[in-house]
Amino acid sequence: MSEHALDHLIKILSSLPNLGPRSARRVALHIIQNKETLMRPLAHTLLDAADTIQSCLVCGNLDTQSPCHICEDYKRNESVLCIVASVSDVWAIERTGHYKGHYHVLGGVLSAIDGIAPKDLNLDRLKIRIQNQDFEEIIIALSATVDGQTTAHYITDLLSDLNLTITGLARGIPMGGELDFLDEGTIGTAFKSRKNVE
Amino acid sequence: MSEHALDHLIKILSSLPNLGPRSARRVALHIIQNKETLMRPLAHTLLDAADTIQSCLVCGNLDTQSPCHICEDYKRNESVLCIVASVSDVWAIERTGHYKGHYHVLGGVLSAIDGIAPKDLNLDRLKIRIQNQDFEEIIIALSATVDGQTTAHYITDLLSDLNLTITGLARGIPMGGELDFLDEGTIGTAFKSRKNVE
Repeated sequence: MSEHALDHLIKILSSLPNLGPRSARRVALHIIQNKETLMRPLAHTLLDAADTIQSCLVCGNLDTQSPCHICEDYKRNESVLCIVASVSDVWAIERTGHYKGHYHVLGGVLSAIDGIAPKDLNLDRLKIRIQNQDFEEIIIALSATVDGQTTAHYITDLLSDLNLTITGLARGIPMGGELDFLDEGTIGTAFKSRKNVE
Repeated sequence: MSEHALDHLIKILSSLPNLGPRSARRVALHIIQNKETLMRPLAHTLLDAADTIQSCLVCGNLDTQSPCHICEDYKRNESVLCIVASVSDVWAIERTGHYKGHYHVLGGVLSAIDGIAPKDLNLDRLKIRIQNQDFEEIIIALSATVDGQTTAHYITDLLSDLNLTITGLARGIPMGGELDFLDEGTIGTAFKSRKNVE
């Protein structure tokens, strides 16, 4: 249509996370130079995904069905629930292959600065879910940030009268982490939580 | 359609320049969470641009029309031609606002490693254009890399029998460049090309 189809594309692309104006221009150029192999397939994939991907009504994960594939997977451990902030955390944990239980996606963490209150998170459904299902363990897998830990405390309080085992992720030195480059908080926590060498 | 609409989207996104798997996932998630304000508009903009944007048959620039707006702009200086490697270089030079002549986009530079030979570049049309039009100056605006300079020499040879003024971009210290951080080649060139202080 317009004279500005290109400018418009660059403008939309530069609004994406991780893309500034310069990389948006590079991406736009790369896309245009691959019209049939990239540009149209990308457009159709976007429309297809917009039509099919939805939020799972049980856990809040994104999938082409609700309940999602994880909630429906009868091979997964139904007695463990892992609470995460966002769908990308589900993906990150799934990539490890270490967890075979279920998830609950909060859709964010409490934040005074960003004005995110408990009502903005997927907490009502969490409580209903936990009341109706016999979980043996609730794993709170939130970031080790101030907001993440505030949210973890809030959830621990919320669930305190339900007599559940609530766990959190271990703190310590990350894989490949060099002591020299780690902050005192991490090293201190790793010291306090030190373990016997097996 | 498929169970894998999301994986498919992430895969396409991670093939874009400047986006690795991790940022592709972040972008995919951001897009999905803004279906109506971002995902569908982006898809439609892509289809719209795929339909309308084409390569200018005169200069090789990308535009919604051919000849492009720059080639058709009668206010621009018809006696100067600037040879660039890619459309992004046209954009970069246009952003400076310092140039009001015409362009010729080569579509790359000669490269032994990437197997790009003279026949792969937009050179035939360049020669025809220069033979048919009275240019007073040809500016070769290619990168100061080995491939860029090889291409510049090749073009200079190609045009040597046409008795034209051929110029290249000035070399020196970039704006804001700290001597400490610049390579010897740049500093050496800047020394040799030193100018009287006005």
